[in-house]
Amino acid sequence: MTLLTDYGAGSEHVGALHAVVASRAPGVDRIDLAHDLPPGDVRYGATVFARLVPLAPVGVHLAVIDPGVGTTRRAVAIECADGRLLVGPDNGLLRPAADHLGIIRAVELSAAEHLRTVVAPTFHGRDIFAPAAAHLAGDGALTDLGPDVDPRSLVALALPRPEVSAGRITTIVLGADRFGNVELVAGPSDVTGSGIAVGDAVTVQIAATVAMGRVGEVFADIASGGVLVYIDSHRSLAIAIRDGNARDHFDAHAGARVEVSVIDV
Amino acid sequence: MTLLTDYGAGSEHVGALHAVVASRAPGVDRIDLAHDLPPGDVRYGATVFARLVPLAPVGVHLAVIDPGVGTTRRAVAIECADGRLLVGPDNGLLRPAADHLGIIRAVELSAAEHLRTVVAPTFHGRDIFAPAAAHLAGDGALTDLGPDVDPRSLVALALPRPEVSAGRITTIVLGADRFGNVELVAGPSDVTGSGIAVGDAVTVQIAATVAMGRVGEVFADIASGGVLVYIDSHRSLAIAIRDGNARDHFDAHAGARVEVSVIDV
Amino acid sequence: MTLLTDYGAGSEHVGALHAVVASRAPGVDRIDLAHDLPPGDVRYGATVFARLVPLAPVGVHLAVIDPGVGTTRRAVAIECADGRLLVGPDNGLLRPAADHLGIIRAVELSAAEHLRTVVAPTFHGRDIFAPAAAHLAGDGALTDLGPDVDPRSLVALALPRPEVSAGRITTIVLGADRFGNVELVAGPSDVTGSGIAVGDAVTVQIAATVAMGRVGEVFADIASGGVLVYIDSHRSLAIAIRDGNARDHFDAHAGARVEVSVIDV
Repeated sequence: MTLLTDYGAGSEHVGALHAVVASRAPGVDRIDLAHDLPPGDVRYGATVFARLVPLAPVGVHLAVIDPGVGTTRRAVAIECADGRLLVGPDNGLLRPAADHLGIIRAVELSAAEHLRTVVAPTFHGRDIFAPAAAHLAGDGALTDLGPDVDPRSLVALALPRPEVSAGRITTIVLGADRFGNVELVAGPSDVTGSGIAVGDAVTVQIAATVAMGRVGEVFADIASGGVLVYIDSHRSLAIAIRDGNARDHFDAHAGARVEVSVIDV
Repeated sequence: MTLLTDYGAGSEHVGALHAVVASRAPGVDRIDLAHDLPPGDVRYGATVFARLVPLAPVGVHLAVIDPGVGTTRRAVAIECADGRLLVGPDNGLLRPAADHLGIIRAVELSAAEHLRTVVAPTFHGRDIFAPAAAHLAGDGALTDLGPDVDPRSLVALALPRPEVSAGRITTIVLGADRFGNVELVAGPSDVTGSGIAVGDAVTVQIAATVAMGRVGEVFADIASGGVLVYIDSHRSLAIAIRDGNARDHFDAHAGARVEVSVIDV
Repeated sequence: MTLLTDYGAGSEHVGALHAVVASRAPGVDRIDLAHDLPPGDVRYGATVFARLVPLAPVGVHLAVIDPGVGTTRRAVAIECADGRLLVGPDNGLLRPAADHLGIIRAVELSAAEHLRTVVAPTFHGRDIFAPAAAHLAGDGALTDLGPDVDPRSLVALALPRPEVSAGRITTIVLGADRFGNVELVAGPSDVTGSGIAVGDAVTVQIAATVAMGRVGEVFADIASGGVLVYIDSHRSLAIAIRDGNARDHFDAHAGARVEVSVIDV
């Protein structure tokens, strides 16, 4: 099974999930997909979850980014068409992955015999989601965990669509990685639609910061310190600074407005 | 077996522990409980260790937060009543867990044949603790590792007791997590003793910073940006700022003085 | 098998490697050696890799610190004399480990059937190195992965040699750990050559910062707040501040010039 959270790498919260799963599903391989995701950023976490799950062996996939813990948001498990089972809060985190894989069935995690004896109102990861995931990883039945949920009622978070015109893409920052490479809400079809092409000189504006850059394919396409606009390894439009840190340079936080425009020559 | 350190998540020091254990105890599941604990903070680490160990399968539990490495502090292994075996420095780190589980026997790790051939004076984790833990995880005998230690001689670190009066709790900060939620040295019985109750308006002072807050049960009990006083998932009194970071707001470092007082109305 | 990168602990990039390996080599133990290494610092990563690999079980050892991804630098696998197989970019990262273990054979990773179907130009870890490592971990043949490479053509990065004279060592910073302990490019033979001995009072200069210190063996050899010069657990000359952080105090970045000089008395 796999685990993805915003708990922080090496944190005791991640350790608690592993301990609970190891106790209840001994012998099951536990694969950490990501734990350093931005705290509470369900939208970015959902995107990362959707692209990592298909890389992992078919199995149980636990995801917890849960700013609404302790409210009325539901806890759910979703069975997908290829046999994968997704477990987490019903706040949109599981939806992009589930929609991509195809939803067969969903249940609400409410069967007391598959929760920890006492459920803390602020740590459902340990007390609800990990026990449910362990139950499924040990080949327990989905329907043991609680009543069916109408898949159409599962919460979905819409990402805004980029605005695309000739020579211009306007969108937002989705997130950034340790290298400071900034991932945007836009993909190859948006680039094609704008007519922007490899080799073009462009201006890049993120929030209030503007810089000149160039469209390329790899970091080596630009001189050291230069701004690269490229399709990243997840097929997202992205901004990097070679041998530098684009997130810091542009102070690029999630949701910030971005405009990439071809420079007329 | 489980591992808990202050070495830092993803650090080469954690990697060295895993490599040594994997070499000497192949096939044993290794569960990372926590590695991002505050460097050298034995008291906080001991608390975290005591609450995580019972979640994990019965086995060997390695813990290394060891600012006194290279001094005369002993290296020990402790057998507990439920069969768990705790391995680490005798500096108080293991005691809350051991006392909770019940100590059967303790030994000092001094048998040369179960250490690495050369022991570096500054990395007993790699050279003493990991080999000892691997020996036990491979079903080696506790008494192979060295002579018996009188359990009453094991070092214990006392936590200060909170001061509790009508409408007031005075204590210290124990630690904080990635979300900035601040854990205090106080629990449900202290809250009961003070008469403070869910719904009360309170002032919270940590070191020199004072703020108004409210006692609640979940983050949703307070408006965004508000200060929540609550019993956290470990049954500790805690301070959070909804959609914010209480550790940063209050500059709450371990050991800082905290006062929670009901506002008279 | 083992994994070492500069991707960041808990990052989705590390998760992608684990997911790919778990899918293609089920049942193989995956040991994280280090993931928090300084981004793009091949020289430091190579040193860390060389000292961690021998601690791990003989097997496949994947390392990716790859600032030249997408350029013409080769991707390689190296068979060593003790049966270990090293996989990573041919940029010097694997050489210290390979040279220490003895190189038997090397191949270039170019066989399309052992890469992911689409190779992103900026994420060879996921698309080239992890599939190759999984192939080898599943007992696939080295020669399946591509044509032989002349071992003498493998890129090596030279570390500068320290300058050693009576009572003085001049060298550079190699790196630092979470505790702020600063590792230098120098070892016991350099200390011997300089005549500097345990107990000596010294001045330590790193870049523009100078401090008085003392040569010792363990942190307890110096008072709290004092500067310790010592041979660390990797047999490197190192600088620490007891109960403090030498990296921050000296602003010690990789490559900074360091001079340790005995104070004449």
